[in-house]
Amino acid sequence: MKTYLDCYPCFLRQALEAARAAGASGIVQYEVVHKVLEEFIKFDPQQSPPEMAAKIHAIVRLETKSRDPYFKTKKKDTELSLKLYPKLKNLVAKASDPFEVAVRLAIAGNIIDVGVPGDYDIEATVKRVLNQPFSINDQAKLKRALEGVSSLLYLADNAGETVFERILIEEIGKTTRFLVKAGPVLNDATKEDAIAVGLDTVTNIIDNGSDAPGTVLPLCSAAFVHEFQEAPLIIAKGQANYECLSDCENNIFFLLQAKCPVIAHDLGVPVGSIVLKQGGIEAKIKSPKH
Amino acid sequence: MKTYLDCYPCFLRQALEAARAAGASGIVQYEVVHKVLEEFIKFDPQQSPPEMAAKIHAIVRLETKSRDPYFKTKKKDTELSLKLYPKLKNLVAKASDPFEVAVRLAIAGNIIDVGVPGDYDIEATVKRVLNQPFSINDQAKLKRALEGVSSLLYLADNAGETVFERILIEEIGKTTRFLVKAGPVLNDATKEDAIAVGLDTVTNIIDNGSDAPGTVLPLCSAAFVHEFQEAPLIIAKGQANYECLSDCENNIFFLLQAKCPVIAHDLGVPVGSIVLKQGGIEAKIKSPKH
Repeated sequence: MKTYLDCYPCFLRQALEAARAAGASGIVQYEVVHKVLEEFIKFDPQQSPPEMAAKIHAIVRLETKSRDPYFKTKKKDTELSLKLYPKLKNLVAKASDPFEVAVRLAIAGNIIDVGVPGDYDIEATVKRVLNQPFSINDQAKLKRALEGVSSLLYLADNAGETVFERILIEEIGKTTRFLVKAGPVLNDATKEDAIAVGLDTVTNIIDNGSDAPGTVLPLCSAAFVHEFQEAPLIIAKGQANYECLSDCENNIFFLLQAKCPVIAHDLGVPVGSIVLKQGGIEAKIKSPKH
Repeated sequence: MKTYLDCYPCFLRQALEAARAAGASGIVQYEVVHKVLEEFIKFDPQQSPPEMAAKIHAIVRLETKSRDPYFKTKKKDTELSLKLYPKLKNLVAKASDPFEVAVRLAIAGNIIDVGVPGDYDIEATVKRVLNQPFSINDQAKLKRALEGVSSLLYLADNAGETVFERILIEEIGKTTRFLVKAGPVLNDATKEDAIAVGLDTVTNIIDNGSDAPGTVLPLCSAAFVHEFQEAPLIIAKGQANYECLSDCENNIFFLLQAKCPVIAHDLGVPVGSIVLKQGGIEAKIKSPKH
């Protein structure tokens, strides 16, 4: 997905919020905003929003001298989500369609996102998403695709949300490579965050060599890019992975809540929608207009 | 009021919305955004937000070749508000405190504002504001100040809102100079918009020589600045006039709804508050901490 002009105000807000999360003074906040404005002027909007976001959060970390502005948020969300884990597992266990419930929970967890404006309520979101109609639902295709593979690549999103990924991965029950960021950016999950929720016991955690949000392939390690290209099936979680990979050719499924109006527009769904969308070459063959 | 860093994302959104209101193509929208970014980099945030907004909307008019991007919106809001006029007059006529109802209606009309995000519902807002507690209420001081003068200067805000100003001005019943913008900016009222609601029959309409939102004194005509300095009493309507004049020394009262979080913060009230606040030297003498 390209960067829309509507992304620019949102980038600026995100930069300010991240600088404040890092405890920056007014002067440092001003410096952050000005450095971001200079990047805007040079930026090619044919690139995806996470490519700009990567620059923005590098500026924030440099100017605020904070390695991880959202450290506390990630810890809090991880602890809260871990407390919910037994109850969520129970919901899947007693469901008439455990796969669907696990998918819905993974999408519910996508509310944990410091990149969009406003607060989030994880428990209220779980209740909502368990009953909300899908705006795009390629669940049957995902199920079939999973039957044809012995392993998959799962692209993680945020810390805390990782608990919800774990539930889906456990339900799928296949050998899984769990992809995290190589360094902190926003509240994106790193290896530490994945280990904190026990994902090392059910997956093989790898990092993409980058600290951009989403999966910006030009910024990822060659080793990961090779793995990405060879993966028989990819589950990509969250808005940033959709922004980065909506045009890729792989066998890929996007799971997300459309929290941002620009992404909702790109997907052709209302803001607040829950989405399980097949992307990649398969989707393109079946829907030539896409 | 100075420009806060939080104003920058909002300025960018406003520029895009105005460009789109003018029917700009994607390429022209991109040009608008880039020219605005260049202005941001040069801007001194000690200036008030309307000083930046004046530059932004000049860029929008130039790049989109539209003299008045919000022409249709102003016409629609004026027509709708005029339809409400008899009903609103009746509310004042039968009120136990007609002055308070007229003040509340003037504040209700302040919902008509294309500068803040989202749509507005004028009739629902009238109902709300008639019963909403004031967050700042210097009504008694305004009443006393009005008793001591034979004339006043009323700084207008937006087209359509002008109907609500007319009701308050009629209720006050003093000789009134009604200040409008010299040219279109956002949905701010010009002479045409004031005449369209009959304000020429109850006031002396003058313009400030500027097409900035609010009342940016350095951009106003010398004749108006002189008049402003000599005015025995000023009623300043809307957020932009507060942004421009919150630090001035005049005998001035601000009437507004705090729709924007930055202005609400500056006023020390929650977003959505209704405010009648004495400003100027009088307020400073009585509240030295201010």
